[in-house]
Amino acid sequence: MAEQTLADIGEFGLIAELTKRFPQGEQVVVGPGDDAALLRIRNGHVVVSTDLLVEGRHFRRDWASAADVGHRAAAQNLSDINAMGGRAHSLTVGFAAPPDLPARWALEFADGFAEECALVGASVVGGDVTRSAQIVVSVTVLGSVTQAPVLRSGARPGDVLALAGRQGWAAAGLAVLGRGFRSPRAVVAAYQRPEPPYAAGPAAAAAGATAMVDVSDGLLAEAGHLASASGVAIDVTSGSLEVPEPFRAVAAALNADPLSFALSGGDDHALLATFPSASALPEGWREIGSVSDGDGVTVDGKPYDGPTGWTHF
Amino acid sequence: MAEQTLADIGEFGLIAELTKRFPQGEQVVVGPGDDAALLRIRNGHVVVSTDLLVEGRHFRRDWASAADVGHRAAAQNLSDINAMGGRAHSLTVGFAAPPDLPARWALEFADGFAEECALVGASVVGGDVTRSAQIVVSVTVLGSVTQAPVLRSGARPGDVLALAGRQGWAAAGLAVLGRGFRSPRAVVAAYQRPEPPYAAGPAAAAAGATAMVDVSDGLLAEAGHLASASGVAIDVTSGSLEVPEPFRAVAAALNADPLSFALSGGDDHALLATFPSASALPEGWREIGSVSDGDGVTVDGKPYDGPTGWTHF
Repeated sequence: MAEQTLADIGEFGLIAELTKRFPQGEQVVVGPGDDAALLRIRNGHVVVSTDLLVEGRHFRRDWASAADVGHRAAAQNLSDINAMGGRAHSLTVGFAAPPDLPARWALEFADGFAEECALVGASVVGGDVTRSAQIVVSVTVLGSVTQAPVLRSGARPGDVLALAGRQGWAAAGLAVLGRGFRSPRAVVAAYQRPEPPYAAGPAAAAAGATAMVDVSDGLLAEAGHLASASGVAIDVTSGSLEVPEPFRAVAAALNADPLSFALSGGDDHALLATFPSASALPEGWREIGSVSDGDGVTVDGKPYDGPTGWTHF
Repeated sequence: MAEQTLADIGEFGLIAELTKRFPQGEQVVVGPGDDAALLRIRNGHVVVSTDLLVEGRHFRRDWASAADVGHRAAAQNLSDINAMGGRAHSLTVGFAAPPDLPARWALEFADGFAEECALVGASVVGGDVTRSAQIVVSVTVLGSVTQAPVLRSGARPGDVLALAGRQGWAAAGLAVLGRGFRSPRAVVAAYQRPEPPYAAGPAAAAAGATAMVDVSDGLLAEAGHLASASGVAIDVTSGSLEVPEPFRAVAAALNADPLSFALSGGDDHALLATFPSASALPEGWREIGSVSDGDGVTVDGKPYDGPTGWTHF
């Protein structure tokens, strides 16, 4: 029997199957199925962010399972709330796909998405499905902050630059997949299913972080965003970055600098933040550089001449 | 000189140009440019909905200007909040497009989008842009309700069925464009730029509407959604529907039933609601049918054998 496609199960069949996979949190007064969802909001504020994932651009079906892509789609959005020092509670998902896509792919994507959301207790409260030539997933995430959000613009000269979470693993994995390899398995798995440090964002906010950003465009690129938004210079100490054994193996095979994965990679969704130098860094954070008067980003005091990150067009 | 494309101006150039076009409302504490936006929320609730527009599926660049598509993308989302009896205040926009798209198209789209949002005082607070093979626009809208939202499930036997807004005009326009014609101009213009009855949603909620839905999938299809969600039967009185002169002209040219545009069309984003029979209908609403015990939708007491609406796969 031929595998069922989206065209076979139809819009309403797909929505019914998807809805089963998304348990509703206590903030949900009206969930999926009406013209809009109704959410109870605490603290008088909501933090909101949107991200797109496009097949062939942000993922490939032969490089990651549907569940992996679901995890990644959720993770990169949850991470944006994390980077404000907040906690995500609700998401909407737009899912555009070719009618001949196996229905199983869409449902396994949803399972992965729901599993990632469950890590932070967030729920999918609505969405839309439609036909397109290429899979495009659009996610909007809503969250709350219990104190002032940590913006990109608050870094001050004298602050310490710090990092939370794995950094460079996913980039090394992507480099491997791009050459047609499947190992080292540890970096490929890191690319397929990122593990953003969800506890580190609120912990940084509570510890007085002055600025914070989610590393999605590459460590140096995001340091550049902090530097320009804050009007400061940032220096990254390369010796403070972890360059684990798999990076060396990949770099040797691809004739690359093992440090480049840590400096230019973004797909791990680590967090980069600045803290007043006198404050103790919260759990999960490690110092990787410093903030001073000036502008721009340097590595060990010098301009970096390798690739610094990702551009979208 | 060749026209500038998205690839020419780049991601950050595009975002900078887009951001200029989106004034920020008083609810916005942190607007575009950080990992997430921060919004002030009144009443302890938020209403949220997401819709996708795909080029070739929901719009064609040769059938509507970029500004028109911007108006439509905003309108269909604002309309979802309208259908809950709420008012939209904030939107995020995901914009995926080919790198060779003229930058002017994206900016005129944004102008149209912003103009439509201004009609209800809502603002674009964030978004994402990326590359794709086909233009895909994803919009998430947030709004507020000042009383309980009007759901699809509240219609009761004995209620009156009522409609607000133009109905069938856009469908007639789409039928004309689909045959390669450009007139009658009135229906083509209605397709290109819908005029949802934004005041009618909150007015219906205030007047005690028992159920409400945005007519995006066709009048009979949406009546079916109300009937099944509420566990009632709905009858539409065909003589109560407006069949203006342009519908007759289009129907004659295309050998169609002029009533079919009103019964099956969705792109006007009219509102369909039910009211207790004793209540006076608020301004902008007209009675078009009745609610009774049973299930399903009929027209003049009989099953309708024409097309009832739109399917997404």
